[in-house]
Amino acid sequence: MIRPTALTSLADEAVARCVRLARLSEEAGGTCRSFLSAPMKDCHRELSEWLTAAGATVGVDAAGNLRALYAGTSSSAPGLLIGSHLDTVPNAGAYDGVLGVVLGVALLQSLDGRRLPFSIEIIGFSDEEGVRFGTPFIGSRALVGRLDDALLSCRDATGTTVREALVAFGLRPAELPRAALSGKVLGYLEFHIEQGPVLESLGRPLGVVEGIAAQIRMQFEFSGRTNHAGTTPMHLRHDAVAGAAEWILAVESMARSQPGSVATVGQVEAKPGAINAISGFARVSLDLRHSSQEICASVAGELARQAEEIAGRRGLRVKRCELLRQNAVKMDAFLIHEIEAAVRKVGCEPHRMVSGAGHDAMILAEKVPSAMIFLRSPGGVSHDPAESVNVDDVTKALECGLHLLQQLAESSEFQGRTCRA
Amino acid sequence: MIRPTALTSLADEAVARCVRLARLSEEAGGTCRSFLSAPMKDCHRELSEWLTAAGATVGVDAAGNLRALYAGTSSSAPGLLIGSHLDTVPNAGAYDGVLGVVLGVALLQSLDGRRLPFSIEIIGFSDEEGVRFGTPFIGSRALVGRLDDALLSCRDATGTTVREALVAFGLRPAELPRAALSGKVLGYLEFHIEQGPVLESLGRPLGVVEGIAAQIRMQFEFSGRTNHAGTTPMHLRHDAVAGAAEWILAVESMARSQPGSVATVGQVEAKPGAINAISGFARVSLDLRHSSQEICASVAGELARQAEEIAGRRGLRVKRCELLRQNAVKMDAFLIHEIEAAVRKVGCEPHRMVSGAGHDAMILAEKVPSAMIFLRSPGGVSHDPAESVNVDDVTKALECGLHLLQQLAESSEFQGRTCRA
Repeated sequence: MIRPTALTSLADEAVARCVRLARLSEEAGGTCRSFLSAPMKDCHRELSEWLTAAGATVGVDAAGNLRALYAGTSSSAPGLLIGSHLDTVPNAGAYDGVLGVVLGVALLQSLDGRRLPFSIEIIGFSDEEGVRFGTPFIGSRALVGRLDDALLSCRDATGTTVREALVAFGLRPAELPRAALSGKVLGYLEFHIEQGPVLESLGRPLGVVEGIAAQIRMQFEFSGRTNHAGTTPMHLRHDAVAGAAEWILAVESMARSQPGSVATVGQVEAKPGAINAISGFARVSLDLRHSSQEICASVAGELARQAEEIAGRRGLRVKRCELLRQNAVKMDAFLIHEIEAAVRKVGCEPHRMVSGAGHDAMILAEKVPSAMIFLRSPGGVSHDPAESVNVDDVTKALECGLHLLQQLAESSEFQGRTCRA
Repeated sequence: MIRPTALTSLADEAVARCVRLARLSEEAGGTCRSFLSAPMKDCHRELSEWLTAAGATVGVDAAGNLRALYAGTSSSAPGLLIGSHLDTVPNAGAYDGVLGVVLGVALLQSLDGRRLPFSIEIIGFSDEEGVRFGTPFIGSRALVGRLDDALLSCRDATGTTVREALVAFGLRPAELPRAALSGKVLGYLEFHIEQGPVLESLGRPLGVVEGIAAQIRMQFEFSGRTNHAGTTPMHLRHDAVAGAAEWILAVESMARSQPGSVATVGQVEAKPGAINAISGFARVSLDLRHSSQEICASVAGELARQAEEIAGRRGLRVKRCELLRQNAVKMDAFLIHEIEAAVRKVGCEPHRMVSGAGHDAMILAEKVPSAMIFLRSPGGVSHDPAESVNVDDVTKALECGLHLLQQLAESSEFQGRTCRA
């Protein structure tokens, strides 16, 4: 087994690498690295160097995912996937997504050339946040064969389609089928920061994810009448911003009254957007989550009804479109059990939890047994430059990962349940 | 006197010129021409040709205003100013501002070389809307000597100051004092579309402005805590967008309950602006108007208090800044009287009205007797591509302007009250 001091120094290096990658950004002075952006190319270059040095063979698939293979004891060995996403939200922190990929690199480094009965593929997904095209998981959808024509035809704010963006990044959309999982795959493992306050409140460094909440994302557009702010009496206005504001409060009130649900309006856009013009148009987003997909769907329906009611009363029109409907997803029971054993070996009591956040593991679970290990988020802060991790927790996660690899290498049950993707 | 058919054809030409200038835009497919933008230069070039052909000498002052002098009977003749603004809001119509300048050109054309006992200076103001720097009337402020250091240091969205923008446009900030009015000035006259529904509802082509409402513009910034939309329970959120939405409704409710006041939130910005992130920051604008400046100030104070209350209750902070405080302004009684007489000569009953919109005339009135003639706005529509004018109304405005020039040329009272700017 690797020495504890070596693990600590690998954890230090992993944290330093996250900080280094956070500088690769579309925003001066902050971190924003969206799907197929120029800094994503720089990010691939850095990670490729580290992965190559750790003994992996690196490539980029047709969906822009970084794929690095660390061979097993034989060329026919089945594969274990370890990964997370490399894209970020605007004004992001350094750890969301990236840490899971960098920890994968550290795990290869700590194997120090040792071969296991399965290969390990480290994956850096190209898009999980959905910032550029308003629809998330483009990277992982390619692996499960769900990057369909509708998604490829989505347009970003500049009118570029996903297909055009792939070509501009130097990729070939025709090769997308080859990005899908194939051959014998044992499972998918993802390390990720919790991005919430639960583990910290319990004093636990690591969490074991047993499932991921259902999620619906929508966009609502209110249309009224643009006019001059000084000359249009209040009673003759059809102000799209005022209608949107009333609906934003309805969203908040609904989520507060429905236990276990969270609802967020994170995007607001008003047009024409001049200080002295009444807005004829307002576009707002909705992100809605609940551990029950039935409750999630019923809340979404009620909010759509309230939008119609508000619009009708104010002489506005409202259009809505659904960007994402993700069912609740269970993680793999065998892997959960093995992770709990590995967590205990590093001296921690494992905590099982439902993730309110969607993750690539949710998509991968459609095809392969999947599991997630959460690292405590100081202050519960994420999607913010103040996002952080404790280096001690990173060391424990790495040690836990090594124990898990050892357990899986010794488990005939695990290797026997190989699924063909 | 010029023949009525010639007037109609000049009016047709004026409307066509407005439509032509609307194509000079920063926006593909729409009209947006902000202060010192590239299309403003094209706009100057077109107008300069038309003004030169009409017998005026054209230049651009150090604040980016187009200035064209049509000499009077003697070089020592006092000056009458006629103008409006050449900048627009985003997604604008073709007539707001521009029509007043183009009608000035048409008036010179209709004089057909005839000289009056006063010179006429046609002015196309560089900024009235305040789109680029969030603070309006930069052009007319230069003429009354109020383009001070604070204003010159304002920054646009890209961080460029007014001073830097002037230099980039090829102007010399050191020459700003020479842009201020000097010499003997008789008054300022501005033709402008009403931008509201009043004249249309009364069936009157032309309105005579007796005063301009008081106006306050502010910006409110709500700061909370950015966090992940899926992992932060509703009761632990500090959502800046939800706080801003509550305040937007308070603004609407306050203006509705205060007779004669109008209040508008036209700009809304949320950060980080991702669909799956709770907003840690929201910036909203306020535009507030009332014919009484005391009531306007008291409503602004109450809205600031409500912003504090909402922020306090939600664990947010709120910062506010005032961008503009404009007192109610009276137009010149003598000119109002003369305009009414001219309106009657074209066969219309004049309608006196208070302008809810601010205009360059409001700034010019600080130094010189000022007056405005409103043209009916079909549908009350303005600040929108659907903004329009009736060509018949434009013909009547032009005829009214010619009668007015004739009256003023014959009035010893008018020429005797020369003010030295």
